[in-house]
Amino acid sequence: MENDDEEAQASSTSPPLIEPLLRRSAPNNTSQVAIVGAKLCPIESLDYEIIENDFLLKSEWDWRSQGMFEMFQYISIKWTLCFLVGLFAGLVGFFNNLAVENIAGSKFVITSNMMLARSFGKAFGVFAVSNFALTLFSSLITDFISPTAAGSGIPEVKAYLNGVDAPGIFSFRTLLVKIFGNIAAVSSSLYVGKAGPMVHTGACIAALLGQGGSKKYGLTWRWLRFLKNDKDRRDLVTCGSASGISAAFRSPVGGVLFALEEMASWWRSALLWRTFFTTAVVAIVLRALIDVCKSGKCGLFGKGGLIMFDVTSEDSAYHISDVPVVLVLGVIGGILGSFYNFVLDKVLRLYNLINKKGRAPKIVLACSISIFTSCLLFGLPWFASCRPCPAHASEACPTIGRSGNYKKYQCPPGHYNDLASLFFNTNDDAIRNLFSKNTDDEFHHFSVLLFFITSYFLGILSYGIVAPVGLFVPVIVAGASYGRYVGILLGSHTSLNHGLFAVLGSASLLGGSMRMTVSLCVILLELTNNLLLLPLIMLVLLLSKTVADTFNGNIYDIIMKRKGFPYLEAHEEPYMRQLIVSDVVRGPLLFFNGIEKVCDIVHVLQTTGHNGFPVIDEAVSNTPLLFGLVLRSHLIVLLRKKAFLHTPVATGMGAFKHFAADDFAKRGSGKSQNIEDIEITEEEMEMYIDLHPFANTSPYTVVESMSLAKALKLFRETGLRHLLVVPKTSSRSPVVGILTRHDFMPEHILGLYPNLKKSKWKRLRFRLPEILKFSKHLR
Amino acid sequence: MENDDEEAQASSTSPPLIEPLLRRSAPNNTSQVAIVGAKLCPIESLDYEIIENDFLLKSEWDWRSQGMFEMFQYISIKWTLCFLVGLFAGLVGFFNNLAVENIAGSKFVITSNMMLARSFGKAFGVFAVSNFALTLFSSLITDFISPTAAGSGIPEVKAYLNGVDAPGIFSFRTLLVKIFGNIAAVSSSLYVGKAGPMVHTGACIAALLGQGGSKKYGLTWRWLRFLKNDKDRRDLVTCGSASGISAAFRSPVGGVLFALEEMASWWRSALLWRTFFTTAVVAIVLRALIDVCKSGKCGLFGKGGLIMFDVTSEDSAYHISDVPVVLVLGVIGGILGSFYNFVLDKVLRLYNLINKKGRAPKIVLACSISIFTSCLLFGLPWFASCRPCPAHASEACPTIGRSGNYKKYQCPPGHYNDLASLFFNTNDDAIRNLFSKNTDDEFHHFSVLLFFITSYFLGILSYGIVAPVGLFVPVIVAGASYGRYVGILLGSHTSLNHGLFAVLGSASLLGGSMRMTVSLCVILLELTNNLLLLPLIMLVLLLSKTVADTFNGNIYDIIMKRKGFPYLEAHEEPYMRQLIVSDVVRGPLLFFNGIEKVCDIVHVLQTTGHNGFPVIDEAVSNTPLLFGLVLRSHLIVLLRKKAFLHTPVATGMGAFKHFAADDFAKRGSGKSQNIEDIEITEEEMEMYIDLHPFANTSPYTVVESMSLAKALKLFRETGLRHLLVVPKTSSRSPVVGILTRHDFMPEHILGLYPNLKKSKWKRLRFRLPEILKFSKHLR
Repeated sequence: MENDDEEAQASSTSPPLIEPLLRRSAPNNTSQVAIVGAKLCPIESLDYEIIENDFLLKSEWDWRSQGMFEMFQYISIKWTLCFLVGLFAGLVGFFNNLAVENIAGSKFVITSNMMLARSFGKAFGVFAVSNFALTLFSSLITDFISPTAAGSGIPEVKAYLNGVDAPGIFSFRTLLVKIFGNIAAVSSSLYVGKAGPMVHTGACIAALLGQGGSKKYGLTWRWLRFLKNDKDRRDLVTCGSASGISAAFRSPVGGVLFALEEMASWWRSALLWRTFFTTAVVAIVLRALIDVCKSGKCGLFGKGGLIMFDVTSEDSAYHISDVPVVLVLGVIGGILGSFYNFVLDKVLRLYNLINKKGRAPKIVLACSISIFTSCLLFGLPWFASCRPCPAHASEACPTIGRSGNYKKYQCPPGHYNDLASLFFNTNDDAIRNLFSKNTDDEFHHFSVLLFFITSYFLGILSYGIVAPVGLFVPVIVAGASYGRYVGILLGSHTSLNHGLFAVLGSASLLGGSMRMTVSLCVILLELTNNLLLLPLIMLVLLLSKTVADTFNGNIYDIIMKRKGFPYLEAHEEPYMRQLIVSDVVRGPLLFFNGIEKVCDIVHVLQTTGHNGFPVIDEAVSNTPLLFGLVLRSHLIVLLRKKAFLHTPVATGMGAFKHFAADDFAKRGSGKSQNIEDIEITEEEMEMYIDLHPFANTSPYTVVESMSLAKALKLFRETGLRHLLVVPKTSSRSPVVGILTRHDFMPEHILGLYPNLKKSKWKRLRFRLPEILKFSKHLR
Repeated sequence: MENDDEEAQASSTSPPLIEPLLRRSAPNNTSQVAIVGAKLCPIESLDYEIIENDFLLKSEWDWRSQGMFEMFQYISIKWTLCFLVGLFAGLVGFFNNLAVENIAGSKFVITSNMMLARSFGKAFGVFAVSNFALTLFSSLITDFISPTAAGSGIPEVKAYLNGVDAPGIFSFRTLLVKIFGNIAAVSSSLYVGKAGPMVHTGACIAALLGQGGSKKYGLTWRWLRFLKNDKDRRDLVTCGSASGISAAFRSPVGGVLFALEEMASWWRSALLWRTFFTTAVVAIVLRALIDVCKSGKCGLFGKGGLIMFDVTSEDSAYHISDVPVVLVLGVIGGILGSFYNFVLDKVLRLYNLINKKGRAPKIVLACSISIFTSCLLFGLPWFASCRPCPAHASEACPTIGRSGNYKKYQCPPGHYNDLASLFFNTNDDAIRNLFSKNTDDEFHHFSVLLFFITSYFLGILSYGIVAPVGLFVPVIVAGASYGRYVGILLGSHTSLNHGLFAVLGSASLLGGSMRMTVSLCVILLELTNNLLLLPLIMLVLLLSKTVADTFNGNIYDIIMKRKGFPYLEAHEEPYMRQLIVSDVVRGPLLFFNGIEKVCDIVHVLQTTGHNGFPVIDEAVSNTPLLFGLVLRSHLIVLLRKKAFLHTPVATGMGAFKHFAADDFAKRGSGKSQNIEDIEITEEEMEMYIDLHPFANTSPYTVVESMSLAKALKLFRETGLRHLLVVPKTSSRSPVVGILTRHDFMPEHILGLYPNLKKSKWKRLRFRLPEILKFSKHLR
């Protein structure tokens, strides 16, 4: 009777929907697996909740409940790790660039010399074969050693920072493959970048350092014990991803902002400071190493080196009259950027089909892209007519040596091939040429257009292959040539030189594809070293992002979705306001008694995949009482340590002597123990475990009549893995269900309530997707 | 019996404390008032919880539950307001600078001419009297029209963004006084800044625009209805504060980062974008206006204008050998910065005592500071010896006109007074002189030292007066002279010129005092327009912040504490892990029945100051049941509209016809209705109100055994005003108390448990404050 009243009341608070809903049309079948790199892996949620149980409160677990020395340990280890992350990320970034410059440089020096000797066929042979070999190497090590290292890694790291863990994303093998695979891929003249892989590399370094090797390093291990939890690990990985961007672009402030704007799902200002420290270390390490290289000890590294395009020029003033042209550039850049995302999504879908077919098709795909690229890079410059060297060129014409604006290619003496200056070069040099000032007449408009189209589509085609390749640089290349082309067409109406147009073009394509604002702005400023461009870059970024957002989402979000990561957005979908928690919470609910039989625990763990179980005391009072929440990982520790009781009596403090706090520490990313690995005898099966000291006695709870949107806010902001749902009345079971990340996924909810698709919101969503997306991105 | 069991259980989850605690030694007597500007005001908490009650769910309240048109309204009004905030902030920023340059400029032109005519006495008279008059004007309008406009306003805005509202902080009167008072104060040659007041101005503009005038503007009002809540208002105010910094320093990216790092307590990446848009508008408005002024129509504005110190120079390379000197500079800068905060705190305490004594002492204080300043500025340059003009000065020597490096002052022709170039100038010009390159020999070391000491202490003495004055510029001035002094002492060991030392000195003092990192870094880069300095500035900021953090806190936090704002930190104090919620929650608890008598409601509202009351249904079932939470403001609306029932029967949908959604809209900042204003007849007193449709049916709850730290996380992250505490068992009252902001304040908790002061933590805290503070800031 009471229950009925309550039911009626609870449902009266649930708003009426336009059409009656079909309840529970499907169980939660949102993906528990995702494509990590190029490998399908099971994924797990991370847990940032403060676990409050008797055992941990009484142990030396937390540095906050400790003395001065532990506090000192905690703080010093944290800052030391940040320093080390910055140091290693800087070293790796430098090594990466050094290797690429030397490998790709040697290749271009050798082939250019053959071209000078007019052995064109031989030159092509060397060029194509070396590219092929490098690509093959890259895709082989990726596929055989660590498939999780494929791709840029930014979606994976972003998902990790949102609370989704996958095995192996931060393993040492992944790190090695990421570094060497990326060097080979970039050196092979593919249109791929190194920034994304650097971000993953930085994150790997951070995660590995936080893990601190194995148990044999006595002291280090103990000091690191305070960091063995998801939250501190997340902070470190955030620093690592920032250091990656700052190492790739030599952009310390840009790196911090990138981590803040694109990567992190939770942010605190203390973390801002730590990240800033890490990127400062990267900047200083890079600076010192470049100083070393200035003496010429780094082979072909020399002047080229890191991506850094100084376009400082005194004449970079602009006037209001330049603004209309910049507006046009921004709008079209936005359209091109969102089209880039659209096509990339389709290509990735196609590639996923190919990659699923097995090892050989993957490798063949990568090698075909390499051969195709080599043919285009070598072949297309022949379509350009040779141009006479300008009388007062700022540098040697034709170019002597490796990098320069005026590649001779097949041309007669005193002439240069403008297309070869773009195609037959590393991407970094192509960008440098496009960004350079006082070169307005260097490129024929046909050459720039051809280069733009080729680089735009080659970038898209090259991303999905099985190798550690990034997206940033190809987008910058395509954007720079697009900007330069706009400059050639419309530049006569403005006072801007074409190099600045190229910078703005890059900004527009980046803004249209990656949809960042402040971080891209700062990265571009730091890259080009020209602060006067700031207002124009801001304008272009705002415009291109706005335009692109009306069509589709951020490229990393698209890739993440395609890979199947359950990314938890900070904002709710409109229909989440219309649903209440009890509409989506799943059942039947499994729970344990305060003192539970071993065989029951083992059975439940073996037959379900749940990671948290309510502990309910029925004996203590006549109404069942929610005691707390016990985690699967803690249960496994209890079973492994065999802390069993012969009789069902509470153990009290005696329970603790079997355990050290480390036993319950969260192990490294992706590592967890299985129930199958534990051997339990028949006799032990009949014994008991007292769960009271090990259950989290104060889990966050929501009432079943709360709207899903409001529950999501609590779930997301406090970084939960399990959210208990309690009934509105006290007379039923004390818990009606558990909400997890998957219960908030739009696919799951729309699966449960297919009618929502036809309801007002869904109609809007399908009929006028642009408006809703507009609203979503503008919010 | 059950209760006893449960009590025992609940307390067993509470960790043992080192010494037994004295329970409830005091009621919560943390301040419900704070010094806003220079006025003691009652303060209120803001509420960011999603209110889910039947009425609002069924009304057209929320744009998300609406059709396309409402969504379009919501989005367009949001972006339009951001645009307008940027536009007005840009205009005000420009107007401010224009006025200051012309008023202060005229003063210096007139007095300089008198000096040239060697009428020194007359010059001093004009100088001192005009300064006195300007200061008097500024403090009079502040004190008489809007005392809340006194000071920089940054602490007030920061507190607002943390959820503390005060009447009048964003009123139109405050805005006017802030603008004109600041112009007068800055023009009066006081060592005060304009950046802080610009932040408050920007926030005012944003809040006023969001409020949208009064009800008579029909259309606008309706469109604005979606923004009548604390969350959207907070977002707008964040944009406003960012636009303030970007208008003051012409630093759009720096403004965004300032809002992010220093001001905002909650941040989303959607907000980042909107803030960025706002500051981009500011940058473009300023640029356009400066272009207009280039034609010379702006009087003395001319070249000087906005704070912007171009120190672009080709020779700004630095070497590893320069680093040690920079390290020394950073460390000492950190010490000086924290000492600045320390002395400022003491001075503010003293000034508060004076200001409390009434109107006259306040004004006298302000005027005395003005006279003292005038005497120093005019008198001290006489101590400097005249220096001969350098042979190849980059500009006229002695300076002709208003601003320049070589003030003639009392010197013979061909000579200049270096101290006068610093003292007898606006602060902006002094900074420009100190930052200028190729002037290493311009200043005598004694002059720079004297200027440093004077500006350091004048800045401290001038802040607390009753006028809208900021802190940024005085700290930059003092820091620049400090850096220059270090340059003179140690510059010979380095390749850096003294102008760069001045920039680094400013960075170190800013870092030591304000403790920001990324935002200060970007602001300084944008101010000085020199990106190559980046690594050195990062280094100095990191060092000075680290050093200063060991001594005391951020200057704004110190001021906020001194003013009594209950600022809710994102991180918990260590002892909050040791206490559980039931240790601090206050009682006895007042609650309402689902259908309550009018007289009871009126009585409770009149006799208590609580802002939220649980609604408990006892009739529905035999165990009392928590139905929801009703807000004081909503009760007042119900009473005002007199939606009373003659019999205690649920009204159902009929209740809604009396109300429009607007009735429950949150009114502008600081405006709320009092229960005293409502007239209720004797007859009405005996009637009933059905609270069910108006109570928030899904308030967030925590269990009484949760640790305070964990409850704080929920409270802070979801931005609550009330957090209901529920019992561990179901057999007692369904709510045991309500946690509010004040319950989390350290002063309150330590007031309840004085023993905590003597416990391990508190001992640490008093004996070794540096270590704990260190940990707190490093976390």
